[in-house]
Amino acid sequence: MTKEKVVLAYSGGLDTSCILKWLINKGFEVICYMANIGQDEDFAAAEEKALKIGASKVVIEDIREDFIKNYVWPAVSYGLVYENRYLLGTSLARPCISVGLINCVKQNNASYVSHGATGKGNDQVRFELSCYTLLPDVKIIAPWRIKEFIEKFEGRQDLLKFAAENNIPVSVTPKAPWSMDANLMHISYESGILEDPNQEPPKDLFLMSADPREAPKQGTRLEISFVKGFPVRLIDDETSSIYNEPLEIFLKLNEIGGKHGVGRIDIVENRFLGLKSRGVYETPGVTILHHAHTDLEVFCLDKEIYRVKQTLRDKLSDYVYNGFWFSPEGQYTRKCLDLAADTVEGTVKLQIYKGSVTILGRSSKSSLYNADLVSMDKHSGFSPEDATGFINIHAIRLKEYHRALNE
Amino acid sequence: MTKEKVVLAYSGGLDTSCILKWLINKGFEVICYMANIGQDEDFAAAEEKALKIGASKVVIEDIREDFIKNYVWPAVSYGLVYENRYLLGTSLARPCISVGLINCVKQNNASYVSHGATGKGNDQVRFELSCYTLLPDVKIIAPWRIKEFIEKFEGRQDLLKFAAENNIPVSVTPKAPWSMDANLMHISYESGILEDPNQEPPKDLFLMSADPREAPKQGTRLEISFVKGFPVRLIDDETSSIYNEPLEIFLKLNEIGGKHGVGRIDIVENRFLGLKSRGVYETPGVTILHHAHTDLEVFCLDKEIYRVKQTLRDKLSDYVYNGFWFSPEGQYTRKCLDLAADTVEGTVKLQIYKGSVTILGRSSKSSLYNADLVSMDKHSGFSPEDATGFINIHAIRLKEYHRALNE
Amino acid sequence: MTKEKVVLAYSGGLDTSCILKWLINKGFEVICYMANIGQDEDFAAAEEKALKIGASKVVIEDIREDFIKNYVWPAVSYGLVYENRYLLGTSLARPCISVGLINCVKQNNASYVSHGATGKGNDQVRFELSCYTLLPDVKIIAPWRIKEFIEKFEGRQDLLKFAAENNIPVSVTPKAPWSMDANLMHISYESGILEDPNQEPPKDLFLMSADPREAPKQGTRLEISFVKGFPVRLIDDETSSIYNEPLEIFLKLNEIGGKHGVGRIDIVENRFLGLKSRGVYETPGVTILHHAHTDLEVFCLDKEIYRVKQTLRDKLSDYVYNGFWFSPEGQYTRKCLDLAADTVEGTVKLQIYKGSVTILGRSSKSSLYNADLVSMDKHSGFSPEDATGFINIHAIRLKEYHRALNE
Amino acid sequence: MTKEKVVLAYSGGLDTSCILKWLINKGFEVICYMANIGQDEDFAAAEEKALKIGASKVVIEDIREDFIKNYVWPAVSYGLVYENRYLLGTSLARPCISVGLINCVKQNNASYVSHGATGKGNDQVRFELSCYTLLPDVKIIAPWRIKEFIEKFEGRQDLLKFAAENNIPVSVTPKAPWSMDANLMHISYESGILEDPNQEPPKDLFLMSADPREAPKQGTRLEISFVKGFPVRLIDDETSSIYNEPLEIFLKLNEIGGKHGVGRIDIVENRFLGLKSRGVYETPGVTILHHAHTDLEVFCLDKEIYRVKQTLRDKLSDYVYNGFWFSPEGQYTRKCLDLAADTVEGTVKLQIYKGSVTILGRSSKSSLYNADLVSMDKHSGFSPEDATGFINIHAIRLKEYHRALNE
Repeated sequence: MTKEKVVLAYSGGLDTSCILKWLINKGFEVICYMANIGQDEDFAAAEEKALKIGASKVVIEDIREDFIKNYVWPAVSYGLVYENRYLLGTSLARPCISVGLINCVKQNNASYVSHGATGKGNDQVRFELSCYTLLPDVKIIAPWRIKEFIEKFEGRQDLLKFAAENNIPVSVTPKAPWSMDANLMHISYESGILEDPNQEPPKDLFLMSADPREAPKQGTRLEISFVKGFPVRLIDDETSSIYNEPLEIFLKLNEIGGKHGVGRIDIVENRFLGLKSRGVYETPGVTILHHAHTDLEVFCLDKEIYRVKQTLRDKLSDYVYNGFWFSPEGQYTRKCLDLAADTVEGTVKLQIYKGSVTILGRSSKSSLYNADLVSMDKHSGFSPEDATGFINIHAIRLKEYHRALNE
Repeated sequence: MTKEKVVLAYSGGLDTSCILKWLINKGFEVICYMANIGQDEDFAAAEEKALKIGASKVVIEDIREDFIKNYVWPAVSYGLVYENRYLLGTSLARPCISVGLINCVKQNNASYVSHGATGKGNDQVRFELSCYTLLPDVKIIAPWRIKEFIEKFEGRQDLLKFAAENNIPVSVTPKAPWSMDANLMHISYESGILEDPNQEPPKDLFLMSADPREAPKQGTRLEISFVKGFPVRLIDDETSSIYNEPLEIFLKLNEIGGKHGVGRIDIVENRFLGLKSRGVYETPGVTILHHAHTDLEVFCLDKEIYRVKQTLRDKLSDYVYNGFWFSPEGQYTRKCLDLAADTVEGTVKLQIYKGSVTILGRSSKSSLYNADLVSMDKHSGFSPEDATGFINIHAIRLKEYHRALNE
Repeated sequence: MTKEKVVLAYSGGLDTSCILKWLINKGFEVICYMANIGQDEDFAAAEEKALKIGASKVVIEDIREDFIKNYVWPAVSYGLVYENRYLLGTSLARPCISVGLINCVKQNNASYVSHGATGKGNDQVRFELSCYTLLPDVKIIAPWRIKEFIEKFEGRQDLLKFAAENNIPVSVTPKAPWSMDANLMHISYESGILEDPNQEPPKDLFLMSADPREAPKQGTRLEISFVKGFPVRLIDDETSSIYNEPLEIFLKLNEIGGKHGVGRIDIVENRFLGLKSRGVYETPGVTILHHAHTDLEVFCLDKEIYRVKQTLRDKLSDYVYNGFWFSPEGQYTRKCLDLAADTVEGTVKLQIYKGSVTILGRSSKSSLYNADLVSMDKHSGFSPEDATGFINIHAIRLKEYHRALNE
Repeated sequence: MTKEKVVLAYSGGLDTSCILKWLINKGFEVICYMANIGQDEDFAAAEEKALKIGASKVVIEDIREDFIKNYVWPAVSYGLVYENRYLLGTSLARPCISVGLINCVKQNNASYVSHGATGKGNDQVRFELSCYTLLPDVKIIAPWRIKEFIEKFEGRQDLLKFAAENNIPVSVTPKAPWSMDANLMHISYESGILEDPNQEPPKDLFLMSADPREAPKQGTRLEISFVKGFPVRLIDDETSSIYNEPLEIFLKLNEIGGKHGVGRIDIVENRFLGLKSRGVYETPGVTILHHAHTDLEVFCLDKEIYRVKQTLRDKLSDYVYNGFWFSPEGQYTRKCLDLAADTVEGTVKLQIYKGSVTILGRSSKSSLYNADLVSMDKHSGFSPEDATGFINIHAIRLKEYHRALNE
């Protein structure tokens, strides 16, 4: 009898290696899927390890360009930010990886997807809702929510024991007292010692960015250009280097932001499941882009379109955080936001220094800014008497309210 | 015949001095009202100047405490921010000053208020809507919108000529090529050379804050405590000094923020009248408070109350910017937001360094954060199987949408 | 050993009678709780039946007054309506009944609540979220979601068989080919033949209201007065009768509305679980109140407070439909909406005729309506020239947009 | 010297006839523009009258089809409704007429537009903002806001006197004690005796619709089909007639709605200028369409897309009422709403009777309604246990809130 096929989102780590073996023991044929989304990983070693454990196949896919062009660039253009601070680095990666997983399911005639996301977190939701939307008939195995699995693996010691028993190689590097998730856009840190929200993150936690206090004494000046809300050119003023390709723009900004300690945040956030959780994030490059784009956007867009866009942005930020990137409402608001970005075009000058991003100026051919109109020294197209009428009409309602209150 | 009385919002500068004289020439009795709202001003000299020009009386009022307690503290608690960046330093001062103006009108049986705000700006609206709401029958003289006045004073030269002709003393300090407005909370800069949005602000423009590049090499660590969303205690970890009074908390934060170059922004914003304008602001102390409060708020508040609050915050930010602090909707949303702040109580630890504010940790007795519940190592009160149901139910709608699209 | 106690939301019908017996068979002591919320029910017969089946106790509570004052009146005042049409008759009853259930749990030292709500519906969510909020430690038994129970009772035949085997009396009235839920406010109908959304509801379905085509040829004229958004007086112009007590106002309006065929709707709605479902509702009295209050509210409230209120109303309508009446956000928005209702005071004249409610006029001491101000024949307090300025200032932004588009 | 040319929005009535003469006396060449937008008007007589008074030209344009296809159909599709009740009949007509006015300005090389809208109303704003957006350099003459004009014509008697002196023919029909505005979609009534908000509109006021009490004893059954939110077919079940063209669908619905007394409302509304005003409207055909479309829309659209759409609808309703149809935000939200309408396709069955519109059923190929999924008798694709998880996860937050409150 043919075995049922599972595509496992494989990381090469202890958890998913044990899950791989556990699934095989359950009688499944397991294909390991690894997305190269920019994390620091020895893919060849991971492949070897998975095959050794018993995977029937390992699929490694470089989805970095897809991630940047179709998830990160739009997120910058939409201005997505969760609960006023989190730039959604992990939330954006999940649907992108899910596309890879589902393609792998289809190409291999598999029926199942499996993953190592925990039962209290957001990632299980993001993976599964994405997969179910892309392929409604797919079945999902989430071991960390299966009673038998949880009871077998109550703590890390049980995983290590199982690994030893099953000849699963274990990294000799001692595990950090927190968990992390990395991609091109950011690294997130949570759990372990970070669960105490008053405990300052240790200095050696951060991998992408320097401590601002140890960043260079000399800042870096940049120019970033956008067309329809998407970054299209980066100029490093120091070196006069010009970058035009998405991936190179991205990597250069990560390098500069990282060097200068940009994009670290330490927050408590509300998970989709209703729990509050503490997260530490570092997002060097996109933090720079977010500042630049925010500046250009208000410069270019009509005042009221901007307000409608903010309403849609806030909705989409929650959708994306909660795993609804591919949902009907996710698709719909993205289309609406794309329409709004049409005239966001121009160049922003910035300085990056010791953890901060400073806007130095902006220019645009499509801006609605009109220096003559706003100038205190010119009357062009403006009659000051009109402002009197404008104010007086607005005052009618306020005076009436006062009158009624005092009657 | 008794002359009609005007209360003039007097600044001591060239513009309002000329307006004072012009009103006197028009046959009015003019009472000069000066609010001490924290700006750097020689009030005694200004008083002497006004009396010399012909004011019948000069009223100087220290409204700093009122400003902090009733405008700035609530703004921090509500999280007010205009177009994602501007903390509304000038917008908050206007209604506070207007209360002083109207009190002065009432106490002196005056009929008019006059001010030197320009015809393209927001301040005219803020002053006048506040005054009309507080005293619907008051009449307002806005010379910069009166044809006769504008035609007489086409440029600065005309003001200087008029001053010379009328023995109005003029400051010998040459005028900066931009205009500014200062209060305890911030200084704003606009116009002149800043009207080119691509022109970097000159280094010597900023008066409240150091250039981050010249700020101390050593950061400062602080603890700020809030009750019902209002700051109630500041501890400077360096000196172990403790500050409990609103004014002293405020001044100390301004000092620390200013020293470390915190709170500078350079933006293009949408004025109420529909024009885009470029503004540079420095808001050292409140920028620190804004970061601290934002952190504590998400930590303490229920997830969904937080979302409703954000909706109301966005509305109120526009109301306040546009001059509607005292409007029915302004009063109503402030009451609603006060209700939301009830459980925002606790302490935030921060580091201030080279222009940036870093959150180091937070604690609160009223927080909904539950370390046991969120811990990856504990199951307390959480059944991982429930998450399966949660996800599956959410997937129903997504699968149906996919099904319908493909039918 | 003492048995564990369950409080069962008992209806007297076949389903909950079988559940009662099933729970007893499982070893529980079962207390039946019946809320008199205005449904047409022989409570004495139901009590006798429950005791005969084996309930240890039957608690019957008249919660009609509580329902009207604390759920229906606020809903009218807030203007709650789900997806533009449904007045939330069932959604409002559930939290009210849940209070009774939890009080019964506390008074009898029970640990469990059980109910007969189905697994696809909204009511299970409303009951359980309400109960969990009121008493977080309560445990809930929802048989229609328990595998063993569902497998035992696959269809109505299995229930009838179980009833016969266990001497549970069964109504001789044949079951209608739909299900219904009734309370003082409304009756809802769904399922069975109504599951075809194109199938017109049969004429004999409706129990509270006449077919408009068979309603009296003579309409009824009413006057309804409100204070702080709550109905306080009803005058039936035909009989000149005056009603002042909540329950009598309510019952009279139901009678009049029912007689004239008011308040029937036939909709497809989105359930909280994401399914679309077809529901037919008749809500005679509250439909009249909803029209009257809507009219008075716009008459009394400030324009912009009204808009903020609508935003909160839309949020709360979803909360209530989804079962979040007692949630943090439910409580918070209700407090905010209470604040807005302060000045909604006055009297509305209406005509009720053949299914329609027509507003004939309204009066109020607290209205902001000012006939002099709006009159085309008077200039009181209004300078037409001001409108020119108002329009011209608004036109600035529009002209600029046109200019930029064409550059 | 060539005279400056004005295009006057001419109605044929007393006001605009006097304005025509007054403009000529001021030295302008005046072209009268009359839009046939469905009002009851003798255009030939009006043309003759205008030419007799001295218009250099009269342009009469049938814009009914444009009005229906590009303003009314979209408004139905978007679900536009102002302050919960007003279907925006006048607000939609103004931008449509403005297009005609501006085309006339361009074709005749005119520089000015003039109109007879009053200084307290909304229509002046709608006309002028539309014109300024379509042709930013156009100049506008609004006599009812010009001091000289207002002082000359203080009341109706002054207009009659001026008419007599200038040989302007005056209708012998006595003027109704209210003003009205009519187009294909509706008639609005306001002012005069209607300024008392408690005064019931007289029976002879209504021109488009019968009093429901005098409507036929037999209702009419209809079927209306929509594609992408637009009406595409009407079947009158009584006569089995089928209508496919926009204008014929529209006229037939007006006839049926009018006959049965559908679409009368009597409201107090908030004008853009901040005044409250009382308006009586009759909108027979579009009221039927609004009910039908509302029903179909919830049937077809995804639950969350529907919610985003409602947010945009509420914004656009205000934009349109205030005169911002052609504004950047008006255009943008219309594009977004068009996207949402893509799957609103199907047929609604209705009964029209004595002023009420009753939905009898609906069908659609693109609906997300799934009878199998929602059926109480089927388990297809639904596991009841999942609902337990769904509820329990939602309960976490509520329990935590309760816990924190009681700590």
